[in-house]
Amino acid sequence: MQSAKHLANLPSSYIREILAAATSENCISLAGGLPCANHFPLTHLASTIQTLDQDTALFQYGTTKGYEPLRQHLLERYNVSAEHDLIVTNGSQQGIDLIARVFLDQGDEIVMEAPSYLGAIQAFALSQATIKTVPQTPVGPDLDILESLFSSGNIKFFYAVPDFHNPTGVCWSLETRQRVGELCHKYHVALIEDAPYRDIRFHGEALPLASSFCPDNALTLTSFSKTAMPGLRLGCVRGPSQWISLLERVKQATDLHTNLPLQHLLLQLLTHPAYPAHLTTLINVYGSRYRALTDELSSQLGEWGRFNAVDGGMFVWFELNQFNADQLAKSALENGVAVVPASVFYSGEANAPAALRLNYSHSTLERLKEAVSRLANVFKLVKVAA
Amino acid sequence: MQSAKHLANLPSSYIREILAAATSENCISLAGGLPCANHFPLTHLASTIQTLDQDTALFQYGTTKGYEPLRQHLLERYNVSAEHDLIVTNGSQQGIDLIARVFLDQGDEIVMEAPSYLGAIQAFALSQATIKTVPQTPVGPDLDILESLFSSGNIKFFYAVPDFHNPTGVCWSLETRQRVGELCHKYHVALIEDAPYRDIRFHGEALPLASSFCPDNALTLTSFSKTAMPGLRLGCVRGPSQWISLLERVKQATDLHTNLPLQHLLLQLLTHPAYPAHLTTLINVYGSRYRALTDELSSQLGEWGRFNAVDGGMFVWFELNQFNADQLAKSALENGVAVVPASVFYSGEANAPAALRLNYSHSTLERLKEAVSRLANVFKLVKVAA
Repeated sequence: MQSAKHLANLPSSYIREILAAATSENCISLAGGLPCANHFPLTHLASTIQTLDQDTALFQYGTTKGYEPLRQHLLERYNVSAEHDLIVTNGSQQGIDLIARVFLDQGDEIVMEAPSYLGAIQAFALSQATIKTVPQTPVGPDLDILESLFSSGNIKFFYAVPDFHNPTGVCWSLETRQRVGELCHKYHVALIEDAPYRDIRFHGEALPLASSFCPDNALTLTSFSKTAMPGLRLGCVRGPSQWISLLERVKQATDLHTNLPLQHLLLQLLTHPAYPAHLTTLINVYGSRYRALTDELSSQLGEWGRFNAVDGGMFVWFELNQFNADQLAKSALENGVAVVPASVFYSGEANAPAALRLNYSHSTLERLKEAVSRLANVFKLVKVAA
Repeated sequence: MQSAKHLANLPSSYIREILAAATSENCISLAGGLPCANHFPLTHLASTIQTLDQDTALFQYGTTKGYEPLRQHLLERYNVSAEHDLIVTNGSQQGIDLIARVFLDQGDEIVMEAPSYLGAIQAFALSQATIKTVPQTPVGPDLDILESLFSSGNIKFFYAVPDFHNPTGVCWSLETRQRVGELCHKYHVALIEDAPYRDIRFHGEALPLASSFCPDNALTLTSFSKTAMPGLRLGCVRGPSQWISLLERVKQATDLHTNLPLQHLLLQLLTHPAYPAHLTTLINVYGSRYRALTDELSSQLGEWGRFNAVDGGMFVWFELNQFNADQLAKSALENGVAVVPASVFYSGEANAPAALRLNYSHSTLERLKEAVSRLANVFKLVKVAA
């Protein structure tokens, strides 16, 4: 059976391709975007888990929009207005995919930041959208280029990760958020704000969501993979009710609904008195890992490249002096450290710079140091070979 | 933001639309396809559930193809050959949707039985396939019409539910299975065999899967919603490895992977020594409910219509003498009993007969009897009004 033509557009996942090598015993992986399993808040869930088998209704079919007690909690938590609504999804990845399926016809034009989250590039590619890209500045997308793209008049939505961008870690300034909201309003471009890292901020004050500056023309995606646990596979999308209804209709054809037992666990976790303290611990752990990684980058890799400081999230973007990032990532993998080269985060049209994405959330301080030492050796090896 | 054009083709779900009315206290619902929650095998899972919080790895990211210990068990359970493979999905609904997304370009022609499972009609409609239909006989699809459709030369696949069809309960004969396999092989039409009800057989001997007669040209979908619990949202698809790889690639863009904790629970359930006895109990319960429902249909509704006997599954198809099934279902809902009219199970091209789908798995014997008494009154009311 011949596969559909749109599969030809689907980029494969570098991270999943190198998964076997990256998870081998001798490898330190800075490649994935994995939270630290030692800090999963399972102790807070122990009593809930132990009585899970007593709630038969959790194991029956449920409603497509989500487990109602969880939905009600999330509507309150995010101050969702009466004209807006919220749907629970299998991680935010499903939210992105549902948005693509609900709103994108083949050839529809959208804008993404370059670089951008690979999973979003994949979902939009499957829907055969035409992806235009806007380059990043240290405070968010280049607004002049963004306006010139929007003013072309055919852009359906702008997908963006304003808080601790994947892969670059960039956090939009308040002015950028306001201005993007204005531009979306002026040019009738919907804003798809993906905010999986928003709550992982270890420096500075939280800024308003970009979508708060164009609320009736935006959908906001939240993930519970980074703050709670990825294995729950839970996220949500909120925005204008009629848009959420469309997501609900397509989700029904996609998988009927998201399982109820894990939605119940998430609700118990989010409402647990110890949840705020869990978040604080997590943020402190990731903050200290970030500082450990970047200290090593400064001291061991200063001559090979530079990184931009971040205020949160899970990633550092390391720009290389005169190296081929793809080759370097390959050599690094052969030498016991997995990293992701920039090319993975660029869709067809844009040219990738020489850069690596480095994750610091998943490795201990000792392993981060060892990983950078291995990288330093790789730089020397590659330099000698060149 | 304008929704995509393909959404115009998406039929909505009658069952979800009437859900509020159907689940009100005064209503007996024979509408859904719900298993009986009183027979969920939760006692067999109690010890597994109680130690769930001790296995941190279950709450980390997992692999797209499924939780490996569960996959290995299912590969053995279904005797999957070395050239074939298996992917775990969020219920078989996701399997159907992934197949549609991997294999269907807009305008591709497929064949379905008429009537057919609404969730499959929805998934194929979203992929903008052209749906051709083959009518059913008491032993499966009309083979002459099927061959004439296949010989048109453009059919990509034939989606079918050979065991205890939804909505009609028809079970294909051995001869039909062989002949469909031959026709699929001869005309290079893939067989998509959806088998959610296969294990719920309360009369007669199991027949080979239709796909066993064209194994290298088929995908087989299994659901654990009917035999285990629907709230787990777990199913699987098996077939040629290169096809499963394509499903895996698209699933990755869809939701990264299915959650691990519930895959772990399912594995523990399927390998529990008491699982075969659980299945036997379930089959006996559903068999006695089927007999209770059909006894009442014979004694109370004989003058208004007729049903075909079934050997398993969850549904009886009740064909009406000279009634409008849509109107009758509406009157029934107003009079405290929810049923599904035939029109729901027919895609655009085919004309629905006057028939109702009646579910017997979800209601007790007493409520089944009461439901049929209410239906008898509805028939009288509608007759008088006409």
